[in-house]
Amino acid sequence: MLGVCYYPEHWDESRWTEDARRMRELGISFVRIGEFAWSRLEPARDEFQFEWLDRAMDVLHAAGLKVVLGTPTATPPKWLVDEHPDILPYGEDGKVRGFGSRRHYTFSSKTWWRESARIVEIIARRYGEHPGLVGWQTDNEYGCHDTTASWGPEDLKQFKQWLRLRYQSPEQLNEAWGSVFWSMELKSFEDVSLPNLTVTETNPATRLDFWRFQSDQVAAYDKMQCEIIRKHSPGRWVTHNFMGFVSDFDHFKVGDNLDLASWDSYPIGFVEKFPFTEEERNRWAQTSHPDIAPYHHDLYRSVGKGRFWVMEQQPGPVNWAPWNPVPKPGMVRLWTWEALAHGAEVVSYFRWRQAPFAQEQMHAGLNMSGLDELSPGGLEAQQVGKELDAFGNLPESGKAQVALVFDYQTYWTTMIQPQGMDFRYGELCFRWYEILRRLGLDIDFVRPGDSLDGYSLVVVPCMTEVDVATEAALAKATGQILIGARTGSRDRNFVIPKNLPPGPLGKHTGNRVIQVSTLRPGLSDAVSGEVKGAAIRWRETVQTSANILARFANGDPALTEHGNMLYLACWADETLLSSVLTLAAKKAGLETIALPDHIRIRRRGDLTFAFNYGTEAWKIPENGTLVLGDRVLEPQAVSAWKTSIS
Amino acid sequence: MLGVCYYPEHWDESRWTEDARRMRELGISFVRIGEFAWSRLEPARDEFQFEWLDRAMDVLHAAGLKVVLGTPTATPPKWLVDEHPDILPYGEDGKVRGFGSRRHYTFSSKTWWRESARIVEIIARRYGEHPGLVGWQTDNEYGCHDTTASWGPEDLKQFKQWLRLRYQSPEQLNEAWGSVFWSMELKSFEDVSLPNLTVTETNPATRLDFWRFQSDQVAAYDKMQCEIIRKHSPGRWVTHNFMGFVSDFDHFKVGDNLDLASWDSYPIGFVEKFPFTEEERNRWAQTSHPDIAPYHHDLYRSVGKGRFWVMEQQPGPVNWAPWNPVPKPGMVRLWTWEALAHGAEVVSYFRWRQAPFAQEQMHAGLNMSGLDELSPGGLEAQQVGKELDAFGNLPESGKAQVALVFDYQTYWTTMIQPQGMDFRYGELCFRWYEILRRLGLDIDFVRPGDSLDGYSLVVVPCMTEVDVATEAALAKATGQILIGARTGSRDRNFVIPKNLPPGPLGKHTGNRVIQVSTLRPGLSDAVSGEVKGAAIRWRETVQTSANILARFANGDPALTEHGNMLYLACWADETLLSSVLTLAAKKAGLETIALPDHIRIRRRGDLTFAFNYGTEAWKIPENGTLVLGDRVLEPQAVSAWKTSIS
Amino acid sequence: MLGVCYYPEHWDESRWTEDARRMRELGISFVRIGEFAWSRLEPARDEFQFEWLDRAMDVLHAAGLKVVLGTPTATPPKWLVDEHPDILPYGEDGKVRGFGSRRHYTFSSKTWWRESARIVEIIARRYGEHPGLVGWQTDNEYGCHDTTASWGPEDLKQFKQWLRLRYQSPEQLNEAWGSVFWSMELKSFEDVSLPNLTVTETNPATRLDFWRFQSDQVAAYDKMQCEIIRKHSPGRWVTHNFMGFVSDFDHFKVGDNLDLASWDSYPIGFVEKFPFTEEERNRWAQTSHPDIAPYHHDLYRSVGKGRFWVMEQQPGPVNWAPWNPVPKPGMVRLWTWEALAHGAEVVSYFRWRQAPFAQEQMHAGLNMSGLDELSPGGLEAQQVGKELDAFGNLPESGKAQVALVFDYQTYWTTMIQPQGMDFRYGELCFRWYEILRRLGLDIDFVRPGDSLDGYSLVVVPCMTEVDVATEAALAKATGQILIGARTGSRDRNFVIPKNLPPGPLGKHTGNRVIQVSTLRPGLSDAVSGEVKGAAIRWRETVQTSANILARFANGDPALTEHGNMLYLACWADETLLSSVLTLAAKKAGLETIALPDHIRIRRRGDLTFAFNYGTEAWKIPENGTLVLGDRVLEPQAVSAWKTSIS
Repeated sequence: MLGVCYYPEHWDESRWTEDARRMRELGISFVRIGEFAWSRLEPARDEFQFEWLDRAMDVLHAAGLKVVLGTPTATPPKWLVDEHPDILPYGEDGKVRGFGSRRHYTFSSKTWWRESARIVEIIARRYGEHPGLVGWQTDNEYGCHDTTASWGPEDLKQFKQWLRLRYQSPEQLNEAWGSVFWSMELKSFEDVSLPNLTVTETNPATRLDFWRFQSDQVAAYDKMQCEIIRKHSPGRWVTHNFMGFVSDFDHFKVGDNLDLASWDSYPIGFVEKFPFTEEERNRWAQTSHPDIAPYHHDLYRSVGKGRFWVMEQQPGPVNWAPWNPVPKPGMVRLWTWEALAHGAEVVSYFRWRQAPFAQEQMHAGLNMSGLDELSPGGLEAQQVGKELDAFGNLPESGKAQVALVFDYQTYWTTMIQPQGMDFRYGELCFRWYEILRRLGLDIDFVRPGDSLDGYSLVVVPCMTEVDVATEAALAKATGQILIGARTGSRDRNFVIPKNLPPGPLGKHTGNRVIQVSTLRPGLSDAVSGEVKGAAIRWRETVQTSANILARFANGDPALTEHGNMLYLACWADETLLSSVLTLAAKKAGLETIALPDHIRIRRRGDLTFAFNYGTEAWKIPENGTLVLGDRVLEPQAVSAWKTSIS
Repeated sequence: MLGVCYYPEHWDESRWTEDARRMRELGISFVRIGEFAWSRLEPARDEFQFEWLDRAMDVLHAAGLKVVLGTPTATPPKWLVDEHPDILPYGEDGKVRGFGSRRHYTFSSKTWWRESARIVEIIARRYGEHPGLVGWQTDNEYGCHDTTASWGPEDLKQFKQWLRLRYQSPEQLNEAWGSVFWSMELKSFEDVSLPNLTVTETNPATRLDFWRFQSDQVAAYDKMQCEIIRKHSPGRWVTHNFMGFVSDFDHFKVGDNLDLASWDSYPIGFVEKFPFTEEERNRWAQTSHPDIAPYHHDLYRSVGKGRFWVMEQQPGPVNWAPWNPVPKPGMVRLWTWEALAHGAEVVSYFRWRQAPFAQEQMHAGLNMSGLDELSPGGLEAQQVGKELDAFGNLPESGKAQVALVFDYQTYWTTMIQPQGMDFRYGELCFRWYEILRRLGLDIDFVRPGDSLDGYSLVVVPCMTEVDVATEAALAKATGQILIGARTGSRDRNFVIPKNLPPGPLGKHTGNRVIQVSTLRPGLSDAVSGEVKGAAIRWRETVQTSANILARFANGDPALTEHGNMLYLACWADETLLSSVLTLAAKKAGLETIALPDHIRIRRRGDLTFAFNYGTEAWKIPENGTLVLGDRVLEPQAVSAWKTSIS
Repeated sequence: MLGVCYYPEHWDESRWTEDARRMRELGISFVRIGEFAWSRLEPARDEFQFEWLDRAMDVLHAAGLKVVLGTPTATPPKWLVDEHPDILPYGEDGKVRGFGSRRHYTFSSKTWWRESARIVEIIARRYGEHPGLVGWQTDNEYGCHDTTASWGPEDLKQFKQWLRLRYQSPEQLNEAWGSVFWSMELKSFEDVSLPNLTVTETNPATRLDFWRFQSDQVAAYDKMQCEIIRKHSPGRWVTHNFMGFVSDFDHFKVGDNLDLASWDSYPIGFVEKFPFTEEERNRWAQTSHPDIAPYHHDLYRSVGKGRFWVMEQQPGPVNWAPWNPVPKPGMVRLWTWEALAHGAEVVSYFRWRQAPFAQEQMHAGLNMSGLDELSPGGLEAQQVGKELDAFGNLPESGKAQVALVFDYQTYWTTMIQPQGMDFRYGELCFRWYEILRRLGLDIDFVRPGDSLDGYSLVVVPCMTEVDVATEAALAKATGQILIGARTGSRDRNFVIPKNLPPGPLGKHTGNRVIQVSTLRPGLSDAVSGEVKGAAIRWRETVQTSANILARFANGDPALTEHGNMLYLACWADETLLSSVLTLAAKKAGLETIALPDHIRIRRRGDLTFAFNYGTEAWKIPENGTLVLGDRVLEPQAVSAWKTSIS
């Protein structure tokens, strides 16, 4: 199904009806509105103007559109900021981040919670049972623009409180943090200070707790909104639109509040954000890398416990990346189908019409700036609309062959203490995901501690703290398991385990890591044996009682096997990673296919989709009944066929 | 004519007479003094010490030198800053920029205006009719060290006032700015905040207005000084010494106050400032790029409505660039002649003698550090002095063949919203200028809205807002016109025109820009047809009713022609730009010559000058009577010949 | 002799005895403790807990270890910071640098001096005559984390006082600083402001004085601690552990307070800190560059007036560099022997056992994280321990053949006013040192003004201010002297000398520098004559009455000779530097040997040591009796032989 983001407040009311009619004509079923409209709904304290929104919802509903209403908390209006400056966030540099853009609040402000609850309740009461309303979006893109954490007095106050609950006494806090080091001992929770603006680095344990605290706040704040909405809007679902490559808070915890997850898919902008090589950036500048959007589809399908939307789909060039190329013809359609293939329930384009004013005026819409005329991207959306009409309902997404255990805390931990400055957890997971998909495999992201039943292959690229539940899930898993380096390298207090890494997995892997080397770009260590390639960035010295499948140049173990558990003692370069994952898939009994690096496939039920992100055509395997596209998959084309996959 | 900058307060009074004598001996006619001497003139509030300056002026006058006196407002003394800290400027980072260097004031401070008026009036009264005095310089290098804008409470106060006058009501401001976006609506002008220190980007319309406001303040402040001076100093002219590559304020508006413009020419330092390639930087490190100084000569000739000086001419190595090489032998002389060829009335060297102390001690002078001994650059100045004596009066500068419409607001607009991070307006204009000069053409900079009569070729590299006057001037122009991409892409409120770009030029060009792609370095789009080369950085998708002279690879129009108006729908690489400008010149009926890239020529009346910036000699065309130099133009040499130019 | 750094407060008391026993077993004689333990010794104001330290010292003493006790002033505890926030330092950005790491104090705070004196006296009284105590370490790593200077109100207050003493009157200060420039004149010392947070650069003379002032404060603060210690701890020596590549304060002045110098040797981490090329960084990543540690050994031997320790020796991978590779096997032993060969009395490893918690948990120890099990580095230390046992006492270090005059003020001066941004004094000295050592020569660092008697060759890579004592020492020196460019280029007030550079050395060299060119990377100027190569970065135009041994391309003098004084008028590239130093050594009558660039030798008395930092073996010269290692020096091996050196 298709959707669109719409801002009735941006256009003269006389245009609404025609807009709604043209949306339906395009094949659009859902429309998201309202998420930045606070100053229009409440232009001054307690002076509400809901009539325009009443009329807008009625118009949209009358046209047969299903409305998703956003709470407007991402943009507190000027009068509120002036009344309560304590809602403003602080940067890590100690400066207030003021009014004038968006997301200018800290999750730590109790005033902000009160004001948020107030406006959400008022809106939920008014529209909660509107017949056109099908669901809600809380706030907008938590964490975007580096807004998970704030570093002001309100944050310190709440952080102290959070620590009080976690540690109960300053003695226990000192013990957990190792505060004896550098005389950092505290005598009371009032002694706690924020871990910024110091002479040199602060205690990593403090920083991890500060990160956990901020993440917890996001989830709690979201939960507060969800509870108010549910109280006043029975039968409607609630979602939040997450961003891509934001890992500052634990999305799974926010997902716990939601009926379904959604995310904002800007595949091209992300090419400049992810640490690709310059060559990759040039290659994928106008199509995006083939795994950028899918990686997030699979992640958010997991965050949404199986259900997700693309809430904002890039419909053409955008405005916010260092460069903003026009996507190649066909890409808007391709991205839409790719999302559906990965199980998206709805793909909703951002936005209906390009705004000619303000910050995002260079962001394409389905219609050109200010006009009632489809843009090139709009024409592609129209094509998908027709194709979907012809298609009917898509089958359910089943369980994938491969589970990738993804852990937000590992992102925080390795950011806090990289040890080698290019140890980036997000990049690591992405590269594992990429290689697996180039083998033609489907992937589920799994939350640490969740069951691993039914997966032929389980990969853990890295998980610094392996908690009891995760250890148990791994121990119980019957598929092939592959554990990456640095896993189990810390306990819950950011302390190196007494039995050395991989800590709780020591007994399961037969390994003990006695030394770690981080390698600057240009340095590597060759690996050979059952797999081959090279270690880069991170390389462990392992003592093992397991089988050694491959060794580093000096004979140290590089890949070990103990029962169903493989352990890879380094950051692998592309050759080694491909070699290791191919071996793991083979041991898992999975059939793989060496896809060209610009082709991807994805199964949804009995359908297999294929996508061409490159410049050369690809002939699809001859084992199914074509239901979309051709057997020769041209550049930027999509094909789909029915088949039975083992 | 030659001049020099002199600081009597830096030297023992016993040396003044000999200094003045040696200046005259060198061929110097003008001497600028006084512009940093506030603390010597008024060491404490209302305690004046003018006697030393009285004597200095008398000594200089007695030697036959004509004095240019600078107002000392670029360096408010410590006692004044202590009395009135509100005169200090704030950085965009929110920090006060304190005492200890120069330009430490904000144009927004009313206290500062009062104090400036006071000191200017006192000085103007005392020296306004001194027989040695011929002219005035206001302040020093407005905008240098990023001092056009300030971001403090005084600035906010004045910005609000400026907005009140422009918009009359908050409703009109909200409408103009599109404040509905992200709930940025304001209820009164008191709600306005500065567009800095926010979570993410602020409204580009706000930023443009802030930039216009600051620019207006510079012009108004300058006007205040000029009016005081004129009141007390009849018959003397007033100028200001502008910097190179500073575009933060509208120099044309300041020029409106002045009798003539002047600028400070540091050709080598600017090589590190302009975004040249590393290869270019190495090539031109010791001569400067052949167009750096000329570009500014032509710009400031326009700012000065035909009259300009070089107020400070680099006489050797300087101190402020990342590297400061010694110019190649001959360059100080070459730069001087190049300025004169472009119409400079006076070239004034900075400075008479190298100061052995303080910030600029590594800045060469005509005399070596502390000594009465000419430096290598001083010897070259001496040579020019002799040559000028032999030459007699130079002819008037006539109108050039080519008009380049230059627009400060376009610089601000594209800085505020680059869309591709390498879209740099200054670089664009410079590259167009460079290619035109390599075709042997002379160029006038034209202020937007000014008449384009009499120009065979009019080029508009980019002009984001095409106002009514400019549209009219273009419509009336009879020469060949070439419009660059992004022109007419915004209205006066920073809004995309309703008829899409090029807005008011849509009907004149027959074009409508429906999409824009910005291309990262490494990406390009080939162009072929009557011109060839490639688009880089910026590439438009144009719908056109005009003739299509060249197309992009996919067939989209790249160069269109509609009447006398060519439209180039991209940022052109060097090949394409050269091809397009050659075609445009041909259509304009101009005779061009393919100069080697290290040679430039420039006409002044019936004289043609040639300059060699490179390492290989060049044989000048055999069509004139040599009046300076040789027919074989050696590296770093200058030749001039009389001829009749069509 | 070997030592180790130990933190009894990090481990359960039950482990101390066994730790001490195992230290002795390893061959360790000295143990440093206590330098970060303030919060354990005085957990709250005047509440002391010394019992644990009493017991720890007794345990260590009982095991036969000699204790070095550190004063704990590098880590003021939270309660003290809360009581007296005025002890906190400010960054140059004007922000307070808060509690949470270490070195969070400013040397300007009189409160801090009082509190430091208090805790040092209490500890010195308690332990000053403990039978196990042999020496003291003041504080920890002065200047580390950019903590020499602070930019707060206390600093301004003390700076004014320092200036009062230096200049006596504001008139003299204005005269010395050239404050007339840009109206910077001050009317009283109260007018002084810190040279930060200004619009553009501040007066270099002010900055130099601010640097001198801060440097003086470090020395005075250290002296205060030393005096208290000596009063209460008769017969014990005092040292301080300096860092590598910290030149913010004059180490010689601190050395004046000490009985011996010591330093913290982290050869691998420094590879990322020094401006090596990427190629060099990759090459030396796992061994360190062969001159990094030796350079500092020789420097600190001079700071310690002949006596030095390595107080902290890297025993494996560390935690604080951008990448932290495991050293190649053999390097921990090699570094230890290299230090001893350069005259170190003791090499003390940091640390006994890797801490599993807090900031340095990834820093290797002699024992693995939390365990009683030697790490790979621990095993190498064990080997050295055995070798030293077999060796007996090492001979005294004699005077080297070459003196390198090293001047901290030149570092400050060239940082303040680089003129070419890659003029780095530290790099210059290092490269001269490197080439000299590749010629097989031993080097003493000499403090400016100290006698140069007995050195065959004296090199002065650069010394901006040549004071009277240094001029006299150079005039008196009978060896061959080589003076580098920029020497004598400023007087004590940061003013260019009246006779132009090299100022006081003008008459000794026969030279006068009339112009300076700084060259961007990519530019160079060929030199030929008795030496050949090229000038890069810095190139002078010299007028000379001396013999010209080599010239630049245009004929200007590049290397001149006047009596025993050579003058090199540029920054030399590797080829030229090697050529010049070879010539200078030859003129000095020194026998040189062209060592492969991965091999170094060093004499200590009648012993010659050889070290292999590379990947290829080297056959040692056949002129001595082998006492350690083999005649074929394998990679990472050490050999030593007895011989008589001329």
